Amino acid sequence: MSEFDLINQYFKAAAVKRDDVVLGIGDDCALLSPPPGKQLAVSTDTLISGVHFPETTKAEDIGYKSLAVNLSDLAAMGAEPAWVSLAISLPELDHAWLENFMSGFTELAQRYSVCLIGGDTTRGPLSITISVTGFVSPEAVLKRSSAKAGDAVFVTGTLGDARLGLQAILNKSMIDKNLAFCIKRLNRPTANILAGQLLGVFSDIAAIDISDGLLSDLGHICTSSETGAIINLSSLPLSNELSHYYHQKPDWQKVLNAGDDYELCFCCSQQQVSALLEKFTKHGIPITQIGKITEVKGIQCLLEDGAKLDITQDGYNHFAT
Amino acid sequence: MSEFDLINQYFKAAAVKRDDVVLGIGDDCALLSPPPGKQLAVSTDTLISGVHFPETTKAEDIGYKSLAVNLSDLAAMGAEPAWVSLAISLPELDHAWLENFMSGFTELAQRYSVCLIGGDTTRGPLSITISVTGFVSPEAVLKRSSAKAGDAVFVTGTLGDARLGLQAILNKSMIDKNLAFCIKRLNRPTANILAGQLLGVFSDIAAIDISDGLLSDLGHICTSSETGAIINLSSLPLSNELSHYYHQKPDWQKVLNAGDDYELCFCCSQQQVSALLEKFTKHGIPITQIGKITEVKGIQCLLEDGAKLDITQDGYNHFAT
Repeated sequence: MSEFDLINQYFKAAAVKRDDVVLGIGDDCALLSPPPGKQLAVSTDTLISGVHFPETTKAEDIGYKSLAVNLSDLAAMGAEPAWVSLAISLPELDHAWLENFMSGFTELAQRYSVCLIGGDTTRGPLSITISVTGFVSPEAVLKRSSAKAGDAVFVTGTLGDARLGLQAILNKSMIDKNLAFCIKRLNRPTANILAGQLLGVFSDIAAIDISDGLLSDLGHICTSSETGAIINLSSLPLSNELSHYYHQKPDWQKVLNAGDDYELCFCCSQQQVSALLEKFTKHGIPITQIGKITEVKGIQCLLEDGAKLDITQDGYNHFAT
Repeated sequence: MSEFDLINQYFKAAAVKRDDVVLGIGDDCALLSPPPGKQLAVSTDTLISGVHFPETTKAEDIGYKSLAVNLSDLAAMGAEPAWVSLAISLPELDHAWLENFMSGFTELAQRYSVCLIGGDTTRGPLSITISVTGFVSPEAVLKRSSAKAGDAVFVTGTLGDARLGLQAILNKSMIDKNLAFCIKRLNRPTANILAGQLLGVFSDIAAIDISDGLLSDLGHICTSSETGAIINLSSLPLSNELSHYYHQKPDWQKVLNAGDDYELCFCCSQQQVSALLEKFTKHGIPITQIGKITEVKGIQCLLEDGAKLDITQDGYNHFAT
């Protein structure tokens, strides 16, 4: 089977129909008609087998996750997903694998009406690079640089589940710990698209998706905004499964450095808090205030009694030396 | 050094300034402001070491070529390059390599004012995935499906050089054959952006870039347009270096299946030929009529005396079974 048949068979079948896709897969380029008055938000992420997901991960979960982590970047800008390109390297042509990969990918693509506009298939070690484009009104953009001293710091959902899920997969002694929920959080991370769009209604919200851990990613907001932050550890939202595993005594070092949940972290003014809580409650999206932005640089983590806890940053770093 | 420092150091430095890039590298997404009335042409290509370029290829040539093959897809649609995303996997953090890679990449990006808007760096076997976006007026789009029986078939430049260059690199016995020109054609392929834009002035031109060989790529035009084609072998434009190497008796099998030159193949009506020749001559871009489109399906290759030559297609196929 030629590369072209491959592309036709799997990729064209996965293309959600959109009016703004003038020409989809099959020519030298896709042709797209962007909506007037909107800006385009574009993000690119690579996932490598054994680095970004365990080598034992099911093809359908890899397909789902590859798209989810990219959509998560759109969510963090407040953008509405539209188009996606998929470049995939495979050690060998495995139809069953590709079919399963595309089923996970397509499930998520259909949920958000994202159209697969093109891509490339090559022979090589398993790796997936995805580039997504979304639309956002200029006034609804969420930037890392918008945080101000005094802002409330929020996160969506719960933190640390995916990392615990990874631990459960890598450590056979944990097999009976009933961590299916955490493993699902690892393999099928949330793309908080609606949350990002709700935030866009408010002005000057700073946001980021937590891909490398709260400490690292809130750190990016602080660096871009030239601020610091205080995190109240007792406020951090934890799932029942994680709390139960840690017997109510979480390993903060792990929770604060846990990426892969892909929840959003955002900062808003104190005046915006109540309207924001009301809007998220109405849409059934859990958000939790976990601290505040400070003028003093650096991130301080406080225990319930006000004592500081020293946490070192170990968010995943591909070229740490 | 963290991934973020890497991105900052090499990628930000390579970002050409453009007014339509509202927010470049450094947030969750880039923010772009597309020009009203234009369509976006988007293409994605992966290059893997040892597959798409010899492992001995210099970093600066890899950087140049990675961008060139993507720009070539924009050329084949008649689009003007604007933005590029770069995802790169490296076995280890090698500053000298990255610097050289980016110097080749940036040389070409600056020539066409393409802005690097984002990307991803990961640890893994050497592989580069690039996604480019260009602008094109809806009426100037070049599609593979526009060829009609009776159309003249043209190519830009010369054919077969890059393949001969690759042969020279892989085959030490050819070291004295003075094939530096052909090796340069392999490592620094042409991105025929201007040619694509000149073609856009004419209506209903079919075009493709020759990445897999003339036979294969003209074949894509024919399939999309539901036509066939005749190629007159004696008309094929060959470089002096290639002609000299073959002692004026080219190995047609190799020349017709040679990709990597990234010349354009295009089809226009007989009525358009003289205006088209005039325009290309004025801009100093060599084009050659090599045959015509036929109603009869399939591609026939004719020798000077009118005899058919049987050529089998062996254009590069990543998953040939």
